[in-house]
Amino acid sequence: MTTKAYGAHAADKPLEPLDIERRAPGPHDVQIDIAYCGVCHSDLHTVRSEWGGTLYPCVPGHEIVGHVSAVGDDVAGFKVGDVVGVGCMVDSCQHCASCAEGLEQFCENGFIGTYNGATKDAPGHTLGGYSQRIVVSDRFVLKIRHPQDQLAAVAPLLCAGITTYSPLRHWNVGPGQKVGIVGIGGLGHMGVKIAHAMGAHVVAFTTSDRKHQDALNLGADEVVVSRNRDEMKAHAGSFDFILNTVAASHSLDDYTALLKRDGTLVLVGVPEHPHPSPNVGNLIFKRRAIAGSLIGGIAETQEMLDFCAEKGIVADIEMIKMQEIDTAYDRMAKSDVKYRFVIDSASLAG
Amino acid sequence: MTTKAYGAHAADKPLEPLDIERRAPGPHDVQIDIAYCGVCHSDLHTVRSEWGGTLYPCVPGHEIVGHVSAVGDDVAGFKVGDVVGVGCMVDSCQHCASCAEGLEQFCENGFIGTYNGATKDAPGHTLGGYSQRIVVSDRFVLKIRHPQDQLAAVAPLLCAGITTYSPLRHWNVGPGQKVGIVGIGGLGHMGVKIAHAMGAHVVAFTTSDRKHQDALNLGADEVVVSRNRDEMKAHAGSFDFILNTVAASHSLDDYTALLKRDGTLVLVGVPEHPHPSPNVGNLIFKRRAIAGSLIGGIAETQEMLDFCAEKGIVADIEMIKMQEIDTAYDRMAKSDVKYRFVIDSASLAG
Repeated sequence: MTTKAYGAHAADKPLEPLDIERRAPGPHDVQIDIAYCGVCHSDLHTVRSEWGGTLYPCVPGHEIVGHVSAVGDDVAGFKVGDVVGVGCMVDSCQHCASCAEGLEQFCENGFIGTYNGATKDAPGHTLGGYSQRIVVSDRFVLKIRHPQDQLAAVAPLLCAGITTYSPLRHWNVGPGQKVGIVGIGGLGHMGVKIAHAMGAHVVAFTTSDRKHQDALNLGADEVVVSRNRDEMKAHAGSFDFILNTVAASHSLDDYTALLKRDGTLVLVGVPEHPHPSPNVGNLIFKRRAIAGSLIGGIAETQEMLDFCAEKGIVADIEMIKMQEIDTAYDRMAKSDVKYRFVIDSASLAG
Repeated sequence: MTTKAYGAHAADKPLEPLDIERRAPGPHDVQIDIAYCGVCHSDLHTVRSEWGGTLYPCVPGHEIVGHVSAVGDDVAGFKVGDVVGVGCMVDSCQHCASCAEGLEQFCENGFIGTYNGATKDAPGHTLGGYSQRIVVSDRFVLKIRHPQDQLAAVAPLLCAGITTYSPLRHWNVGPGQKVGIVGIGGLGHMGVKIAHAMGAHVVAFTTSDRKHQDALNLGADEVVVSRNRDEMKAHAGSFDFILNTVAASHSLDDYTALLKRDGTLVLVGVPEHPHPSPNVGNLIFKRRAIAGSLIGGIAETQEMLDFCAEKGIVADIEMIKMQEIDTAYDRMAKSDVKYRFVIDSASLAG
């Protein structure tokens, strides 16, 4: 089944139109006609092989929303016409301890990414959502319960949404807690919205005052400009939890110092260059922790989508045509987007 | 009340005999005739002002065991002749959130250390257990329930014991868990004994094979030589919890890589020079954490002492006379002690 897509043939080549093959749906497969696909920083890192190990041709995209256009004989949970989503994973071993607990993102044998993952399908690695159609095992397909007119803005929930929801949920964020969200970008703006909806007192940290009013509009109760030492100090030892969405190398001590006793600073981005080594005294003297978190499991992703549908949460997006992806990457690399680009997949037909 | 002690007049001066003053017991005070005092690395760091901020004369010592020789009028919990202990703290604010929870070590207003802490008593800072007698608020005095002939070996429980017990308890170490103890010294040898008594499968990490048999004798189920890459790799992703007692700068990645998903690496020592910056990917890809822990609260210290009395746990010690402290410091700095020096306080009379 030939499908129109957009991808790159090498790290130093621009994205261009490609024809790719999708498998015919097997008994447990769901075939999805893609309506929208969010543009994630990982897409750019992977297509340019900035993390190394990229297989070409590379078709990025793992914030996928679309409609079911066919299902395999043994698929019970989905039918043609359903609105569904696909996130960062399309498969996992299904038999390790993590898979058994519904934490496929920590599959002991390595989950299969929506792009650049191992597959028996041609060309031997998975090809993502910058395409008209995708075929995915029903275990990795999510139901979308948002209204039809919000579907484009739902797409970023599949990565940015779950990446922030999962740690907020895992560390039991809720009413009565003071929670920090560091970085108001694709991830952070979702973190602010979700933490606010969970009932926490939300403080947004941003490097400049430029996003102050925006952060309040997103649901932050307070905004702190992280370059302002006095503003930072005023919050020392007061946070139950801080979610740090900034991957660029920076001092983690600025944030561990703001945690209460037993508070946790969670990182969701791998820095290109290491952060300065965190001050161990900051951890010891208040039993604080620095932890990491990775997207979320499939069951939790469904929970997040349902939570967001109930609370009326979607991403703030700028819609683009597929042909505008290079400009979008350039702007995303400069954080010049509020707050996520989403590809209108109809433009692939053009 | 003049009391014989041992202390230093300056960072570059050796310890020597001193006469110090102890206050007469107030209504809530317990006066203790010291029988034994353990020798902790912090004693050496403080007396030499290696952390800065040392007030002189400096009398170290915060692993104190002795007998009650007088009590204030309002002391209900102790009577003359009781065997008691004093650890790293002799006071705290008693009204902050941490004190209210019995976590005086995290007192929001700063706990008062057994030495080098602020006090109204002369000379304006606290003087520790390298002395014949100490007067302490009854809230900071611990009951010792070990047999009389073990009292010298109980002394190190007051710092080394609680520093390892508290994180093992806080992170719920117990049967069915695989637990690592890094560094087999004063702290680590207690960590091995306590984790074993809690029912965990204990793996001791040591830089050389020299302590292999010792570690097994202490209660380790397995011993790993941390410089042996293959031995380390064989344990990748298998630990529920690792307690790292090594303060010297070293790669934490070697240990985070050994944790299971959701495992925690706990640090109890502040390195003189920062550890290499920990790999963030190691944290993110298995939701691992690096945390710190500081001694323990008074209630927990009592719990630890009772636990150790019940399980027959004491430190492995070498008894010294007070006059041998310089030699002991030199040997301790080279890790040439199995595993804790304890001062026989009777030698102060000589």
